Amino acid sequence: MDARDIEAEPGTVYLVGSGPGDPGLLTVRAKALLEDADVILHDRLPGPKIIGMLPDERCEYVGKHAQGERTTQSEINDRLVEYARDGKKVVRLKGGDSFVFGRGGEEAEYLANHGVPFEVVPGVTSAIAAPAVVGIPVTHRDHASSVSFVTGHEDPTKDESAVDWESLAEAGGTIVVLMGVKRLPDYTAALREAGMSSETPVALVERGTWPEQQVATGTLETIVEARDEVGIRPPAVTVIGDVAATRESVLDALENEYAPVADGRRGDGDD
Amino acid sequence: MDARDIEAEPGTVYLVGSGPGDPGLLTVRAKALLEDADVILHDRLPGPKIIGMLPDERCEYVGKHAQGERTTQSEINDRLVEYARDGKKVVRLKGGDSFVFGRGGEEAEYLANHGVPFEVVPGVTSAIAAPAVVGIPVTHRDHASSVSFVTGHEDPTKDESAVDWESLAEAGGTIVVLMGVKRLPDYTAALREAGMSSETPVALVERGTWPEQQVATGTLETIVEARDEVGIRPPAVTVIGDVAATRESVLDALENEYAPVADGRRGDGDD
Repeated sequence: MDARDIEAEPGTVYLVGSGPGDPGLLTVRAKALLEDADVILHDRLPGPKIIGMLPDERCEYVGKHAQGERTTQSEINDRLVEYARDGKKVVRLKGGDSFVFGRGGEEAEYLANHGVPFEVVPGVTSAIAAPAVVGIPVTHRDHASSVSFVTGHEDPTKDESAVDWESLAEAGGTIVVLMGVKRLPDYTAALREAGMSSETPVALVERGTWPEQQVATGTLETIVEARDEVGIRPPAVTVIGDVAATRESVLDALENEYAPVADGRRGDGDD
Repeated sequence: MDARDIEAEPGTVYLVGSGPGDPGLLTVRAKALLEDADVILHDRLPGPKIIGMLPDERCEYVGKHAQGERTTQSEINDRLVEYARDGKKVVRLKGGDSFVFGRGGEEAEYLANHGVPFEVVPGVTSAIAAPAVVGIPVTHRDHASSVSFVTGHEDPTKDESAVDWESLAEAGGTIVVLMGVKRLPDYTAALREAGMSSETPVALVERGTWPEQQVATGTLETIVEARDEVGIRPPAVTVIGDVAATRESVLDALENEYAPVADGRRGDGDD
């Protein structure tokens, strides 16, 4: 069946990825579902442009509140089931793709366990798109025959760290770290200790495709300083590997820089 | 700048990812560019539904020909530059995302070296979307804190194999192999030799989101047999890791199966 041919079904939950933030990078299917949904549960990660398109009266915010309080995953799961049982067409909107560190898998299992029909609508993941729009391909025939995506939320100095930085370093492909601004000093150190060259190119892309997009470039040795100079803040993705250097060779011809880009090549730094 | 606000520019090349094959998973921007382009260079990987939407008179096929002859990358690069210098609005359409084993990086560098402006329009990668629509999240908080994408084109028994299967096995996250139908026996053996359990769940998804979608599931030990029973043919993605088993737990509630699915749970096998 062709996704664009079917309308949203009452009593169904749509797990929709919103892409990196530019409304032009929503999928055709995602856009149609957002227009057709009775209720849209979202946090801030889809970004101001996409959230600004949504009709307030059909939106329910389930992210972090001003007081630092956060809607729990369990509360979100319950809301999804309630709305679906109430016969609503429900969109669960996530930044990027729901199944790449987006807890889409957990939500899918919860819905299935409660007999609620759901559909997965994949999105453009920021892990690939944010580097791409600033001139960095995560794979390259000459430089990288594999790419690994990891979460930077964890403390790599913990013994029980689930991310095996040493094996990732040995694998020799590109490493893309999501949510890794704060822990940048820890995992860049871990990778150097694992034998990765200090000269390995690294790029940080903050809010790729958002109006506030920023880029910092450097090496495993210098990127922490570059992060602070440019003033990179979460959310951002970190690209580690030779591909991070291809940005320099394509920048002059690259048209889709979502300004301002603050990396010393194209003004507008905010640091 | 907001991608959806800008028209295609004459003399510019758009490196556009078409997503996994369902036209509903084209991005809004990709769809607009396909409608506005003067010339669209493509091969067969975008799939019959999307290719069927394109206007014949503005399309140029640059894939493999019936005689097995293939348009070379160098010929494609030259065509892109020629058309752009001729003032055309040029779309280079690739299946999935151009920057994930799609040679987008090489094309970007070639265009930059020849002073041709280009824009990258990221797409939904099949590496994530094909598993997602059949109920497999490539990451999961309980099962996988990293995911690695590799190409299966290479012979893993070669000494100079660029893919380090041993390190990938040790990293412990999900492994997604693109273009890995033929070499499945080789790299599943390599992973078992590297110490990965024979019981590790594996799924093969052929033509995810296409009308001809097929799925085969098994373990590192049984997947080659399952591949042959179901009759999986390229293109397909292989998902290796505990997440491949989540399909079983969500299948009854999963709505977006692009039929026929031939894996013993939902009829229509063609083997």
